[in-house]
Amino acid sequence: MDPDDGVERPTLASVAALAQVSKQTVSNVLNAPHLVSGATLDRVRAVIDEVGYRPLRAAQQMRSHRSQLIGIRIDPVREGLGGIVLDQFLHALTRSAEESGHRMVLFTADGAEGEVAAYDELVAGFAVDAFVLTGTSHGDPRTAWLRRRRLPVASFGRPWDDPTGRSWVDTDGAAGTRAATEHLVAQGHTRIAFLGWPVGSGTGDDRRSGWLGAMASAGLPVAGLDAGLPDDPAVAQAAALGLLAARGVTALVCASDSLALGALGAVQELGRRPGADVGVVGFDDSPVAAAIGLSSVAQPVAAAAAACIDLLRAQLDPGPGDDVDEPVLLAPRLVVRASSERGGPQAVVPPVLPAP
Amino acid sequence: MDPDDGVERPTLASVAALAQVSKQTVSNVLNAPHLVSGATLDRVRAVIDEVGYRPLRAAQQMRSHRSQLIGIRIDPVREGLGGIVLDQFLHALTRSAEESGHRMVLFTADGAEGEVAAYDELVAGFAVDAFVLTGTSHGDPRTAWLRRRRLPVASFGRPWDDPTGRSWVDTDGAAGTRAATEHLVAQGHTRIAFLGWPVGSGTGDDRRSGWLGAMASAGLPVAGLDAGLPDDPAVAQAAALGLLAARGVTALVCASDSLALGALGAVQELGRRPGADVGVVGFDDSPVAAAIGLSSVAQPVAAAAAACIDLLRAQLDPGPGDDVDEPVLLAPRLVVRASSERGGPQAVVPPVLPAP
Repeated sequence: MDPDDGVERPTLASVAALAQVSKQTVSNVLNAPHLVSGATLDRVRAVIDEVGYRPLRAAQQMRSHRSQLIGIRIDPVREGLGGIVLDQFLHALTRSAEESGHRMVLFTADGAEGEVAAYDELVAGFAVDAFVLTGTSHGDPRTAWLRRRRLPVASFGRPWDDPTGRSWVDTDGAAGTRAATEHLVAQGHTRIAFLGWPVGSGTGDDRRSGWLGAMASAGLPVAGLDAGLPDDPAVAQAAALGLLAARGVTALVCASDSLALGALGAVQELGRRPGADVGVVGFDDSPVAAAIGLSSVAQPVAAAAAACIDLLRAQLDPGPGDDVDEPVLLAPRLVVRASSERGGPQAVVPPVLPAP
Repeated sequence: MDPDDGVERPTLASVAALAQVSKQTVSNVLNAPHLVSGATLDRVRAVIDEVGYRPLRAAQQMRSHRSQLIGIRIDPVREGLGGIVLDQFLHALTRSAEESGHRMVLFTADGAEGEVAAYDELVAGFAVDAFVLTGTSHGDPRTAWLRRRRLPVASFGRPWDDPTGRSWVDTDGAAGTRAATEHLVAQGHTRIAFLGWPVGSGTGDDRRSGWLGAMASAGLPVAGLDAGLPDDPAVAQAAALGLLAARGVTALVCASDSLALGALGAVQELGRRPGADVGVVGFDDSPVAAAIGLSSVAQPVAAAAAACIDLLRAQLDPGPGDDVDEPVLLAPRLVVRASSERGGPQAVVPPVLPAP
């Protein structure tokens, strides 16, 4: 390739000249091929292919005021387990967007204010039609800005500060930890602890509530069995060690696979067998869970992506029966592996986290 | 939000009318704010913000024939460990693209032919300026198509069928497995096996060659120590079991973390200690490796992304000193953890892969 060769980009007119047809015929080949005879169609298409003519969408954009682009923020780097669900979501979203004729365009931003500035630039510079939001939290300034601009928006994750909020899709985290707890109760455990995040995060409190509800339904005590921790395996290992050694705990429901990794480390540190002696269940079903035999709660990522695109599509082109902003709460799925099965074919052996 | 309220999208003219200025002044506020007085600037910007005016890039696009969009394919779903490096690359690419004023736009496609069809549609429908390719393989039809269309392209991964190919960025896989092998030799191992993929994949053969070279340099034998396998932990576990039990192997260099997981399973199955008794090194430094204490070769993902964007930028706007398509081969980094250190602070304990 020599981009410096000074050749002009081909135009509709140059294609028409080379194919010896009118510009209208070239336009018909592109936009209404049924109006063009087979031989002409072949000839014009051959020229278009030969010269690499790009029939710029720009003119169409100016008429429709639609770019067919949907924006979504991603982190500038991806490390650890935390972002795996969002990466899976992005893959599914790309497919779902395509099925409705849209493409996902990516951007990075620091914080919610930076994200709003990025929206502004994407709308001004790229005419982005709509946005998918992730990582919603208490007091989120993003949706207000988008609504003021009348931009279609769908959130993966609830607006925790606004119970009347609309146009979101989320996983029913409480249902996931409830299923995990009920599974451990069915395995004969009665001292079941919860390794979660500190109280105050919407997602974390949701996951805690499912454990609390299932324990109450089973008539089991929870006092002293609830740990609020940073999402760090080493911290979780120390906390789990205390719960297992001093509080008679035999099973742990965890708000993430990172916390569950720490729990497995503590089980091993005490010389107990995961699965057979101590049940451990994580959350998000990361590739790590599948690799080491850790039971985990899987989010319905593909369904969430399809639901987000459906919300945007309804807002962009509302039909008679469309709920343009009806929230969607999806059920997760408990994936049982060796780490929580007492009679399983083979016990999982946990990783040891080397001393930092 | 009520998208059905029939309000027309604001135009340059309606902003001008509301701000009581000329259309040229609005244009100046957007494109040449230094020409506009402070009070007018504030008033026009307030109206733009209030009504949500989008100064469509379309008109600029038609003049420049540039969309500032760069296309990249992603898989419609993401499972297991295989795609983690590409996801990390995508995050870094988004950041590098932004630094040059571009945005990444995503698409999915089935196979190389499907990818070419997607290029066609992205160029015609979205005026995408350039593409980043991944997953290059022998006999790739994609670069030929893109070159014929004079579209700037950069590949993450070498065009293995064409040693004279240009405009690619890749990790020096051989250097990675060479470093892993030398590290194991330094730990006192002499029977070091290679768990790789079947001969014929460019990336796999590259990684194999680094092990072969380091073994030759150390004067160590390789006969019977080279396994070509599918990228599946269970298959790798069976192969590693044979190498450890019957061939006196005490260390394994693996072409992926998936294969290394299988190797760790075999070490445990034989009651040996990873690190202390048997050294294991994976490739790609996935989050699984960090989580379970597996040594692994890390690809320089951020540098690769920056190099790809730099190649595209040079092709789009070649400057006097630009190498528009000079290949870039980047050195990986060996991350040593407990799985390959005989005297480490704590030995890794591998996962057991439950029977399928």
